[in-house]
Amino acid sequence: MSERLTPLPEDKFAFGLWTIGHLGRDPFGDATRPPISPADFVRGLGRIGAWGVSFHDDDLVPPGATAAEAGKIKGDFRSALDETGVVVSMATTNLFWHPCFKDGAFTSNDPEVRRYAISKALRAIDTGAEFGAPTFVFWGGREGVESAASKYPLDALDRYREALNYLSAYVKDQGYQLRFAIEPKPNEPRGDTFLPTIGHAMAFIQTLDDPSMVGLNPEVAHETMAGLSFYQGVAQAIWQEKLFHIDLNDQKIGRYDQDLRFGSEGIKDDFFLVRLLELTGYSGPKHFDSRPYRNEYGDGIWEFAANSMKTYLALAAKARAFNSDPAVQQAAELAGVNALAEPTVGKFSTASAAALKAEKFDPEKLAARNYFNERLDQLVIDHIFGLNNK
Amino acid sequence: MSERLTPLPEDKFAFGLWTIGHLGRDPFGDATRPPISPADFVRGLGRIGAWGVSFHDDDLVPPGATAAEAGKIKGDFRSALDETGVVVSMATTNLFWHPCFKDGAFTSNDPEVRRYAISKALRAIDTGAEFGAPTFVFWGGREGVESAASKYPLDALDRYREALNYLSAYVKDQGYQLRFAIEPKPNEPRGDTFLPTIGHAMAFIQTLDDPSMVGLNPEVAHETMAGLSFYQGVAQAIWQEKLFHIDLNDQKIGRYDQDLRFGSEGIKDDFFLVRLLELTGYSGPKHFDSRPYRNEYGDGIWEFAANSMKTYLALAAKARAFNSDPAVQQAAELAGVNALAEPTVGKFSTASAAALKAEKFDPEKLAARNYFNERLDQLVIDHIFGLNNK
Amino acid sequence: MSERLTPLPEDKFAFGLWTIGHLGRDPFGDATRPPISPADFVRGLGRIGAWGVSFHDDDLVPPGATAAEAGKIKGDFRSALDETGVVVSMATTNLFWHPCFKDGAFTSNDPEVRRYAISKALRAIDTGAEFGAPTFVFWGGREGVESAASKYPLDALDRYREALNYLSAYVKDQGYQLRFAIEPKPNEPRGDTFLPTIGHAMAFIQTLDDPSMVGLNPEVAHETMAGLSFYQGVAQAIWQEKLFHIDLNDQKIGRYDQDLRFGSEGIKDDFFLVRLLELTGYSGPKHFDSRPYRNEYGDGIWEFAANSMKTYLALAAKARAFNSDPAVQQAAELAGVNALAEPTVGKFSTASAAALKAEKFDPEKLAARNYFNERLDQLVIDHIFGLNNK
Amino acid sequence: MSERLTPLPEDKFAFGLWTIGHLGRDPFGDATRPPISPADFVRGLGRIGAWGVSFHDDDLVPPGATAAEAGKIKGDFRSALDETGVVVSMATTNLFWHPCFKDGAFTSNDPEVRRYAISKALRAIDTGAEFGAPTFVFWGGREGVESAASKYPLDALDRYREALNYLSAYVKDQGYQLRFAIEPKPNEPRGDTFLPTIGHAMAFIQTLDDPSMVGLNPEVAHETMAGLSFYQGVAQAIWQEKLFHIDLNDQKIGRYDQDLRFGSEGIKDDFFLVRLLELTGYSGPKHFDSRPYRNEYGDGIWEFAANSMKTYLALAAKARAFNSDPAVQQAAELAGVNALAEPTVGKFSTASAAALKAEKFDPEKLAARNYFNERLDQLVIDHIFGLNNK
Repeated sequence: MSERLTPLPEDKFAFGLWTIGHLGRDPFGDATRPPISPADFVRGLGRIGAWGVSFHDDDLVPPGATAAEAGKIKGDFRSALDETGVVVSMATTNLFWHPCFKDGAFTSNDPEVRRYAISKALRAIDTGAEFGAPTFVFWGGREGVESAASKYPLDALDRYREALNYLSAYVKDQGYQLRFAIEPKPNEPRGDTFLPTIGHAMAFIQTLDDPSMVGLNPEVAHETMAGLSFYQGVAQAIWQEKLFHIDLNDQKIGRYDQDLRFGSEGIKDDFFLVRLLELTGYSGPKHFDSRPYRNEYGDGIWEFAANSMKTYLALAAKARAFNSDPAVQQAAELAGVNALAEPTVGKFSTASAAALKAEKFDPEKLAARNYFNERLDQLVIDHIFGLNNK
Repeated sequence: MSERLTPLPEDKFAFGLWTIGHLGRDPFGDATRPPISPADFVRGLGRIGAWGVSFHDDDLVPPGATAAEAGKIKGDFRSALDETGVVVSMATTNLFWHPCFKDGAFTSNDPEVRRYAISKALRAIDTGAEFGAPTFVFWGGREGVESAASKYPLDALDRYREALNYLSAYVKDQGYQLRFAIEPKPNEPRGDTFLPTIGHAMAFIQTLDDPSMVGLNPEVAHETMAGLSFYQGVAQAIWQEKLFHIDLNDQKIGRYDQDLRFGSEGIKDDFFLVRLLELTGYSGPKHFDSRPYRNEYGDGIWEFAANSMKTYLALAAKARAFNSDPAVQQAAELAGVNALAEPTVGKFSTASAAALKAEKFDPEKLAARNYFNERLDQLVIDHIFGLNNK
Repeated sequence: MSERLTPLPEDKFAFGLWTIGHLGRDPFGDATRPPISPADFVRGLGRIGAWGVSFHDDDLVPPGATAAEAGKIKGDFRSALDETGVVVSMATTNLFWHPCFKDGAFTSNDPEVRRYAISKALRAIDTGAEFGAPTFVFWGGREGVESAASKYPLDALDRYREALNYLSAYVKDQGYQLRFAIEPKPNEPRGDTFLPTIGHAMAFIQTLDDPSMVGLNPEVAHETMAGLSFYQGVAQAIWQEKLFHIDLNDQKIGRYDQDLRFGSEGIKDDFFLVRLLELTGYSGPKHFDSRPYRNEYGDGIWEFAANSMKTYLALAAKARAFNSDPAVQQAAELAGVNALAEPTVGKFSTASAAALKAEKFDPEKLAARNYFNERLDQLVIDHIFGLNNK
Repeated sequence: MSERLTPLPEDKFAFGLWTIGHLGRDPFGDATRPPISPADFVRGLGRIGAWGVSFHDDDLVPPGATAAEAGKIKGDFRSALDETGVVVSMATTNLFWHPCFKDGAFTSNDPEVRRYAISKALRAIDTGAEFGAPTFVFWGGREGVESAASKYPLDALDRYREALNYLSAYVKDQGYQLRFAIEPKPNEPRGDTFLPTIGHAMAFIQTLDDPSMVGLNPEVAHETMAGLSFYQGVAQAIWQEKLFHIDLNDQKIGRYDQDLRFGSEGIKDDFFLVRLLELTGYSGPKHFDSRPYRNEYGDGIWEFAANSMKTYLALAAKARAFNSDPAVQQAAELAGVNALAEPTVGKFSTASAAALKAEKFDPEKLAARNYFNERLDQLVIDHIFGLNNK
């Protein structure tokens, strides 16, 4: 493969401060790695050729920092951005770490906690705008329950909507060039999370005051935890024009949130995902929300990050080769892939319906057809393996 | 518990012809039970006190029946309905059994199969209307893929929408008093199904020509297969006014579609579900889409059906007792359950946002609160067990 | 139900220091509750009527404590035990928290880490013996991989066996009255753990120098994560005389390790489990390895613990009522439950095999039987609901 | 890659009559493909270069065939074997399809069904021996329950053991050169199956009269359904010398039994599996227990089969290239992969234990090490992609 495997700014690869820099803490163990300052993080991104950086409010400025400390951190961060050309591609707010959010943030049963959550989000939006982030993500990690008795879900959805409507209005009022993106997740850390999937979040968005301002930030790991096809979900989000941002990582079905290196687990799914993003001309950030294995240490974390981008580029090259392979095109023709783009019956009319009802079909004949899906699927494997790619 | 455990028509309990009457065939074994005629099925429902019956077009009139045979079957069916007072609560069309649908129905890659599917659905709608079914369900069992290479999902969604728009227009054109309900399912029999969850289906409905005509028929087993909370999903459907019909059964997470007897597996989830349906005044059918264990035989299948209704009624009684238990009310108060119904910040204004941003909060103080969710949850268990229900 | 719902010492209910006392830390949030000293923990257990306490070496004496500090803690702990009559029912060692174990303990690729792990376990065994713990548990939380390339699994199993053989020999050499119990878990915190289920651990035990010294400590949550039937697994462990200890809690299938309150989720499975433990006369500790919801605070944690025991007792009472219910006995008879205890063919002989091969069977007749499993299963639900229990 | 991708007899690739020849029936649809006669099946295998064929008793000779019909079928089958050189690599018995087995076979509650099951197995063993099958597989598809109330599991395990002991004795008595292999599966078609995993089956085997005669036939799909690592499970089976046979196919976690084309889904897992089989010199059949997608038709099914073998060979070539890549060897060295083969402490002695307990370790220093697992894992991906394979 003569294809480019090193990143360029136009690839729009981005990483969050909490990703490569994850300390390695987990439910059964302590941190295994030291923290990295935001400015050093940006310089690291510059070195590996990444384009963007994202942050939670508290990743950038630790809670409790004085105004002077905050100013110093932001100044250093800004300098590193200027120095490297790395851009802020997304900002978000941490409404899950502090114990005050243990019952939820926008949907906490405590009205004071809910007010604090909105207040914190307002300030985080200001910070996002200050650094020019075009997208502000909401991951409602604590918006859920362990016991269904503890919240009446219709109330919870009312409160969730209220918060997003309020914050949307704020963004407009301030004239910020920001859109919101909801990041769904089915469970963990809560037993059951509100807005658990791409679908539920998209349905919810339709009920907001201004649905056009809010889209999705789907994450490979989150849909995959529930065994849902991330590829199909992202496709529906694109179809409904709601793919505002995307979190790339990897995951096994039916487990704790693993945030594995993109391309390291669901290889075939990842191939189709990259092909979809490339085919549809998705132009937002390709944001890696993964963390190095907990036994990674030292410079290994930057190698991990660089390899995430390399794998994406390799899959993009394979997707292009697949699309232009005559054997693939022939198998796709036999499978009728393009025939699915043709309208079936067109616009309704009384006459067309009457004719269609009266039409004689021969189901046995329709059944006696090979769709050649095994051949087509084997070509996917051959391309992933590099067998058809001379 | 002095509560009523025998069904009344007002309970609106319904069963499909394919449920109690399932032949016991599975992927690894042949039928274990003989078929029941539609008319005998209705008489059986009458005997156990069920209110409604539902059917697929092919359950009622087998494909290939002559007009005379079809007339006879329908006449017998009508007589049994008249005789027993059982009503037709829902109709649907079988677009999954015949091998011609092996690549999909509305989303088959073969345009002729797609046309046949719409034609068959038109005729099934006529039959549904003929028997006064107020709801027509679409379960797109074959609308999906094993290999993602075989369909471009944006085309598939276009075709799915085209079919539903056409069929909606037909219903209006005919003046039928019918609404549509989509039944989502994540997988099986296809590897990945389009519109896999309540959320995805609700989001899709927003894109239809007339979203008001289309709602949902969520099924316990289908959401549970993916490990999603059926209770939370149904709550969101109610919140978005899309709960048109419901399929009650039971299921273990992460398995083949089990269609177990309602209340036989996810007891706690079922308790909350019944409580929600009762609390929100859901007035549609309570439709049991379950089948007896494959080693059930003879009259056992009717006992199975009667017990499905009994369990629902027992859970409804427990839900009422739970709601009126002072210990529950006190624990709910401590948990802040009702406080979640209070608006957090109300309508946006520039001034209120400025004030909220400036407000000082004490997160540590907010964190030092017990929400008493363990107590509340134990009361759920106590009520399920009948310990608090003297 | 006139049955006893308050615990007695003979119930052998036990709790680990890390369970009720869990700080509420999770992967996405900080501690929500203050620590409790071991002595205060024991006094709390005394107040709620628990019989036993268990600990990890580091729960009792924090790593880095001086000899004087360790002596003081142990003395206080001993005093609390004496004062309350609570016994030490199990001890174990923490080989997962410290970052040095990030690649494994007995199966770390670093030989020095492996030596340290065995050294730490030896000292923890001494502490267990000092407090009279009859069982020493090994949960190999870090014994696994994220990338299968990182360990050759046959080597890993060699090292695991080597460690257990060495430690077994030590126990005998010291004359301690201790048996070992392996606690299997499929994943989390590692991607894939060695000895993932009850079955794998039992098979492994057969390869040890002294299999009789090593049994199992199965945990509800761990088998349930993988969707396996905990009930069937425990039954096989009893059948193979390997149930040395048991961890009671609760869990949804296909999720992060939830460690929910026993009886709060898989109610029906829990009913069968309690029935099995009571029927087979299991005489070991009933050890609750659960933790309060993270939003629990203050005295709520003790209420949570007391309710765990109450639920067990309620299920035991229901199991007794179920077993003695004539309707259950009749349904069980119809189901042939007792007929499964009869030998099928007895000992092999050439003649009996020849006769059996030549025998004519009528499969159709054998198929035409109702096993009444739906009736029997409904009686389970009725008993759980308290409907048959007047 | 200049490696061989076409099969040779020494590869020992085998297919069952029910695999390529699966009719495409599923729980929601009818057969989509016509049956193939056993003789034609063997000729098809010959054409694609497969080495072996396997069968259930009823696949070869349909139940109810007369002696003359059976003789004809067997004669034709034998001729096809002779003609093509294809060998019978395994035989088994179908104890799941007929409705008489609806409650189980060896563990049915009906003693007459149990006797019939053993009788049928005896005759199937004769047929297996007649065709020289070296392995006889037991998949206990119906050995399980939907309701745990329906069988006391200790009785079920007694009956399971009784049947296998009897059949083992028969094989020896007849002087057949046959070994048994148990094929575990967690669920489907029963709610919960006895001996659900590799581990449970291996533990059970230890209780048989002659454990040496019974090993395992693990299947990719079956362990994967439960989210267990098939690779780790097979490794443990090899470690315990119980890998007698293997079923290669593919599957997504947490779903119905998919029996997908080998290498089409869990690509990375499949890479490690093939590497393990090649590394350990596994010399049994590589048996593909998969079926073409249901929309496959005509000659496509043979292309599907040929591609299964091609993918195996491609992965084997990649495994060899991986093992001999200096970059991999260096990363493995940094990861300490080979250091795990070194004994940790050796044989126990009182003195060595005392020394080990007294030894001072520096956990912080042990923690400050990079294991380079991310680098090693990326090299796996690079090799799968063919990036390092110039």
